[in-house]
Amino acid sequence: MFRTQTCGELRIADINKEVTLAGWVQTVRKFGSITFVDLRDRYGITQLLFSEALNDQLDASPLGREFVLQITGKVHERSNKNKNIPTGDIEILVDHFSVLNKSITPPFTIQDDTDGGDDLRMKYRFLDLRRNAVKKNLELRYAVNRATRDYLHQQGFMDIETPFLIKSTPEGARDFVVPSRMNPGEFYALPQSPQTFKQLLMVSGYDRYYQIVKCFRDEDLRADRQPEFTQIDCEMAFVKQEDILAMFEGLIKYIFKTVKGIEYTEPVARMSWEDAMWQYGNDKPDTRFGMQLLNMKAPAHVFAQKDRSAALVDGAGFGVFDDAETVLAIAVPGCSEYTRKQTDELTEWVKRPQIGMKGLVFIKYNADGSFKSSVDKFYNEDRLKAIAEAAQAKPGDLILILAGTEERTRKAISELRLEMGKRLGMRKDDEFKLLWVLDFPLFEYDEEGNRWVARHHPFTSPKPSDIDTMIGNNPVIENAATYLSHPYANIKANAYDMVLNGNEIGGGSIRIYQKELQQKMFEALGMDAEEQQHKFGFLLGAFEYGAPPHGGIAFGLDRTCAILGGSESIRDFIAFPKNNSGRDIMLDAPATIDNKQLDELQIKIDLK
Amino acid sequence: MFRTQTCGELRIADINKEVTLAGWVQTVRKFGSITFVDLRDRYGITQLLFSEALNDQLDASPLGREFVLQITGKVHERSNKNKNIPTGDIEILVDHFSVLNKSITPPFTIQDDTDGGDDLRMKYRFLDLRRNAVKKNLELRYAVNRATRDYLHQQGFMDIETPFLIKSTPEGARDFVVPSRMNPGEFYALPQSPQTFKQLLMVSGYDRYYQIVKCFRDEDLRADRQPEFTQIDCEMAFVKQEDILAMFEGLIKYIFKTVKGIEYTEPVARMSWEDAMWQYGNDKPDTRFGMQLLNMKAPAHVFAQKDRSAALVDGAGFGVFDDAETVLAIAVPGCSEYTRKQTDELTEWVKRPQIGMKGLVFIKYNADGSFKSSVDKFYNEDRLKAIAEAAQAKPGDLILILAGTEERTRKAISELRLEMGKRLGMRKDDEFKLLWVLDFPLFEYDEEGNRWVARHHPFTSPKPSDIDTMIGNNPVIENAATYLSHPYANIKANAYDMVLNGNEIGGGSIRIYQKELQQKMFEALGMDAEEQQHKFGFLLGAFEYGAPPHGGIAFGLDRTCAILGGSESIRDFIAFPKNNSGRDIMLDAPATIDNKQLDELQIKIDLK
Repeated sequence: MFRTQTCGELRIADINKEVTLAGWVQTVRKFGSITFVDLRDRYGITQLLFSEALNDQLDASPLGREFVLQITGKVHERSNKNKNIPTGDIEILVDHFSVLNKSITPPFTIQDDTDGGDDLRMKYRFLDLRRNAVKKNLELRYAVNRATRDYLHQQGFMDIETPFLIKSTPEGARDFVVPSRMNPGEFYALPQSPQTFKQLLMVSGYDRYYQIVKCFRDEDLRADRQPEFTQIDCEMAFVKQEDILAMFEGLIKYIFKTVKGIEYTEPVARMSWEDAMWQYGNDKPDTRFGMQLLNMKAPAHVFAQKDRSAALVDGAGFGVFDDAETVLAIAVPGCSEYTRKQTDELTEWVKRPQIGMKGLVFIKYNADGSFKSSVDKFYNEDRLKAIAEAAQAKPGDLILILAGTEERTRKAISELRLEMGKRLGMRKDDEFKLLWVLDFPLFEYDEEGNRWVARHHPFTSPKPSDIDTMIGNNPVIENAATYLSHPYANIKANAYDMVLNGNEIGGGSIRIYQKELQQKMFEALGMDAEEQQHKFGFLLGAFEYGAPPHGGIAFGLDRTCAILGGSESIRDFIAFPKNNSGRDIMLDAPATIDNKQLDELQIKIDLK
Repeated sequence: MFRTQTCGELRIADINKEVTLAGWVQTVRKFGSITFVDLRDRYGITQLLFSEALNDQLDASPLGREFVLQITGKVHERSNKNKNIPTGDIEILVDHFSVLNKSITPPFTIQDDTDGGDDLRMKYRFLDLRRNAVKKNLELRYAVNRATRDYLHQQGFMDIETPFLIKSTPEGARDFVVPSRMNPGEFYALPQSPQTFKQLLMVSGYDRYYQIVKCFRDEDLRADRQPEFTQIDCEMAFVKQEDILAMFEGLIKYIFKTVKGIEYTEPVARMSWEDAMWQYGNDKPDTRFGMQLLNMKAPAHVFAQKDRSAALVDGAGFGVFDDAETVLAIAVPGCSEYTRKQTDELTEWVKRPQIGMKGLVFIKYNADGSFKSSVDKFYNEDRLKAIAEAAQAKPGDLILILAGTEERTRKAISELRLEMGKRLGMRKDDEFKLLWVLDFPLFEYDEEGNRWVARHHPFTSPKPSDIDTMIGNNPVIENAATYLSHPYANIKANAYDMVLNGNEIGGGSIRIYQKELQQKMFEALGMDAEEQQHKFGFLLGAFEYGAPPHGGIAFGLDRTCAILGGSESIRDFIAFPKNNSGRDIMLDAPATIDNKQLDELQIKIDLK
């Protein structure tokens, strides 16, 4: 060992101990012939005092930032104590020192508020990782990993490794593929998730499986997506939805407790997918704050069966509302006194291309009970008051209204709600609200192909009460215009998402375990018998040999850690992340490979 | 939940309890109108008793092997107890039953000694995994995984995930590569190990890292190699070799204790690579038994500096020995009374192509002290006795001697030693002998390229005392014939392997952390500055910013589990293994992919 103690452990009780420390030079401060050095390692910072006796030696071999230093010396009480660090009561009077390795000047400072930009820090990620801010994130990640394993172990789960070199069965996202040299012309695929393997393990009788495992998706990367990501992947047999919800509510509460010291005692709230869409405009509502949506017209596509009077806005001669498919409002608390400049800014905000609305209508419900709106010409005070009441607004609130086509308007009001929540400080990093979203539709309509696609994945079971509907009907959509009246449009999935602070952190379902139902599902997704056999023959085969009822869930570890750490960026919680083009800037990967490698693989590059 | 208890937990104390169980039908035995069913799940087997009242219902819906069954009933004491299973005191008197899923007849029996052949079991791996024998292996694997994490956590190690999509830097084994759709013409590689990343983490200050992680090597598969395999991957900073040995001796002992209940209290034996080669003929000796090699001539290549008289065999006019480069013997205990048939069989054994020797010389050291050999014509009793004494033979032993070229003969005697140890029951599955092999050569000579290759990998440090030799000499080998006298031939590595029962289960080294030394190493391996920069620029860069001294080790999890489980085959300890052509027979992978996928990746298949 190059040290007897770490830089984080010495205290006043250690005074007069002879110690050897090793670490990095954080700062060097010279006062005449005396030099102070802050020595840093993973565990903390300890102040070193180089007395006059070492001055010549230091001059001959000057220390610089990030040099690796080994020192031996005696622990002294500091005259000038630093209450900000745990070792602040002591310093080491250095007897000997030796430079284990030198450093050239780092391209940015190794400090919490570094002067390094994003690209520079990614290129020198090995230096960025030295910063305390990044280290804390990786420590949090390890704590989540550890807590997860402990809880699942206690609950009888077994970690079973599933293969990485599997078969390409692209459904939805693209697979990364791996050419096989030993089987020329053939490819492995990297798993998008261990989905079918964990189901096979249930068929095999391993009734509680888990894995913390890398998954891969070759998607066009949006901000904050990574081509490789980590899942907490779980599956249970002989369970119903309620069992899974209870088990994994337990997991997330255990993580809160052990990692964050938070006792999340209340039961996790539950909301149907329809209610989430209806009240919040999206399927992962941030329930740290209210500001629920008022639907002034009934949107047709999502809520076919919901009925709501449009009397609130109709018949006033206001074309924008009358002609709109959808009119949605939120009541923003305490903002009735927004100035013209402020409401103009909000209007500009919703007109940005990312939001894409044509304009914003507002109603100020003044503190004195009076109303002032941008549509006073069309709506008298009584009607404005009726709207305000329907929106659950109070005096002092500002009602914001968007109108347009259904999907875009819903998305826009949802974004506006989140934006206002953020501006008003209602989305606190250290407040955590969990939510189960349930009862998703099993299918989504794919306009392009005029067919059904699986909303979750093809292995998700319909609600037991919908199985007959699914088996008994032809999935083919005869008339695109009336797809909403196809029996499949109303089939609900036995699926669930866990939402934390407006982010989906986990999702899963009770699975299909009957061969016939699985075949019907594949058929509904447009897969003929031959394709079913080619892609999923092993699974259909397994279902012939006594498959038990089962279900599971997968949590996104990167995202979960980011939210627990109070960050929006998953990259901050990954040791070696890739950028938005899927590149590792530090490694400079991907890269060209040798022709010899291509030859051996019997493939050719064929650039368009 | 589909059950209130598992099939493994009910005992005599549970009598009269109403329970619901779910599981698989192991056996059905009908006695008139009464039926006994053994119900199996992950936890055990429970006997069910279907009374006469259920007879009609059973006739209408007959049960078969591997049906998934749910039953409700009352726990009864069995009249005919089964002492072989923990639930053998009780049975369940069934009130209700329901078939959750049916099974067609399995292609082989779900029993410890199944009638299924290897290929069939691989194709239906989901059924093979139901067998208790396989389940126990996966449980052992999970126990090893868990023990490893517990120990390393206690020791302050952090699990930090490293990327899977990295850069191809083929050194030795081939990389699997992954075409990048977003960066056409470029490829990622799958890691052969997280070697450079864990070193970067040391540079970053995370001084104790570990990961249980999949690695990938595109090798021509020998028996019992897998293209993807799992490593327990560890690295520490500010350590010397002794610290690593102590830490990981601790790990393996902890695993022995928690997983196998074995207190391995003695210190792990240590042996230099030279001694291992000299005394056992290979670098991973099985030290459960002795039978050490007698070198009758000094082999030149491995033991250039060793000096040994050839007087034992020379000058007797026996050409086979006189002309041989190498003559090696072992004394097999208690086999002096082998018949002619037995010695002939051994002769045939060494002449098989896998061993490749031309013949076998034997000396019987009879119990009465007399000698009888196949070379009596050339060696009188005195000389035979001298050989026997040198071989540490005792009366009653059989001395076996091989002669030929150095490498082949050494390999052959080593195989013969292992074979004789096995035949004589000296290699017990439940006896465990650990060994550190130390002081490997840093370089191996590559005849084809007349150059040096890294014996371990290019990041392994030479012994501190050899650094000057390495820096101060030109690695180029001027004359192939005298490569042994090149200064590099005698440089020793700061490397160590852990050997268990004759298998290398782990290996590692103290790493190079000085930029200049790393460059010299790359240069020695024939990499020019440009190639160094292209492949390892990030690492050389990192070494400029204060890299600490560090080192590490990686254990092969698959192999370690196999040996702990008393098996020779790692496949038995992998849930979904591949066969010797790298195929997953169950999935039928690798497989062809769609042209659309190839187009998007901008590659073409180019079969030779």
